[in-house]
Formats: sequence, structure tokens, C-alpha cells
Amino acid sequence: MVKYRRSLDATFAALADPTRRAIVARLARGDASVTELARPFKMSLPAVSKHLRVLERAKLLRQAREGRMRRCRLDAQPLKTAAGWIERYHAYWTNQLDSLAAFLEQPDAVPESKKHSKRRKRK
Amino acid sequence: MVKYRRSLDATFAALADPTRRAIVARLARGDASVTELARPFKMSLPAVSKHLRVLERAKLLRQAREGRMRRCRLDAQPLKTAAGWIERYHAYWTNQLDSLAAFLEQPDAVPESKKHSKRRKRK
Repeated sequence: MVKYRRSLDATFAALADPTRRAIVARLARGDASVTELARPFKMSLPAVSKHLRVLERAKLLRQAREGRMRRCRLDAQPLKTAAGWIERYHAYWTNQLDSLAAFLEQPDAVPESKKHSKRRKRK
Repeated sequence: MVKYRRSLDATFAALADPTRRAIVARLARGDASVTELARPFKMSLPAVSKHLRVLERAKLLRQAREGRMRRCRLDAQPLKTAAGWIERYHAYWTNQLDSLAAFLEQPDAVPESKKHSKRRKRK
């Protein structure tokens, strides 16, 4: 359980950065060297390596030496675990968005957000 | 696009903490006051409020005053967006885990992780 919790902590923290998400997206198309991964970003190799270490700690990335090169490979298991956690709320967001849509179809409907802002103004 | 990227940054960062995930899980069962949310955690109200602010900035939580109380409600839209991002890799992890399973069913199969550790030892 603790392992599952720590894995989710590390996965979500790793995904909370656009560069790291772009690296995940790149690796989903195939393995790549660190230089290949760095190419699309206006970043130094050490800066990219720092992001790779975060992904590695989250077990989203494995690196293997091939001669002088390091090949990076995406490990999708943590993504599957994170997706499993978020998917628990699938029913919630479907119902919530459906009821909002139904509510907005009513005549004279006031969206919830507007009601809140009116309440705030009354203070 | 920038808005989408920032929303993902904030959502994943908000979910990278077990207390905040537990708050999301609690709110999925229904709206709650700050005191009700704080109850299961051995935490001060200000510490819980700090977590609520992170969830609020990620637009996962809306607070509305009801007299002296503040009611918290989960907003599931950012969860849906985050799920959409992760789900792009569904095919990848299904294929990756399938090929690993197929590989491990072969006689004399050596799992990739063991190959790597052997390589490391040889250095």
C-alpha cells in the first residue's frame, strides 16, 4: 500500500512538468538517446538529464548503456497505475458534467459558478 | 494550448500528494466542510487549508460560503483532462505489457531488468 502510494506520488510529480510530459510522449514513439531527447528542447544536456532522473525515479524511464550511448526506454507501468487511480472518478465526472449539461438546458438556468460569484459579492 | 498545459501541470502537481488524493476521494462521495475534510487526517486546520488551496488552484475544488461554514465541492473537469492525457498511452502500455508477458512465456526467457543488471556487472 505504501509502495503504491509512493509510486503515485512520484508518477504524478513527474508528470507535473511539460518537458517531462513531452519526453514521455517522445519515448512512446520509440527508444531514444539522451541527445535525441534533448534536441527539441532549448535546454542544456544537464538540464535534460535532470528531468530524466525525475522520470527514472518515478520508474517511467529505464536507461541502458549501448557502448558510449545511453538509450532511454519508457516504462508504461506507472502510467497504467496512475490511469487506474484517476479512472475511479470516471463515473463522478460523467455524472457531474451530465447534470451540469442538463441543468444548463433548463430555462433560466444560472450556472453554479455565477451563483458563487453572486454570493461572494453579497458579503 | 498554454492553458491546457498549465492545467495539466497544476492537476498532476495537486495529485502528487496522498493527503490531497484522499481529499479528492472524500469529495467524490459528496460535498464536505473544511472541518469534515480535516477529521480523518492528523493535521491542523491550517495544514489542511493549505492542501485545499493547492486543489483550488488546480480547479479541482470549489469552496462556497454557507453562513459561517465553507462547503467544498470536487470539480471533476481537471481529472477528466488529466485522464485524457494519460489515456493517450493506453495502447503503449497494453502492447508493452503484452509483449513482456509473451516474452516471459518463452522457454529460457531472461527478463529485460535481469539483462540490464548483468550488463552492469560486466562493466
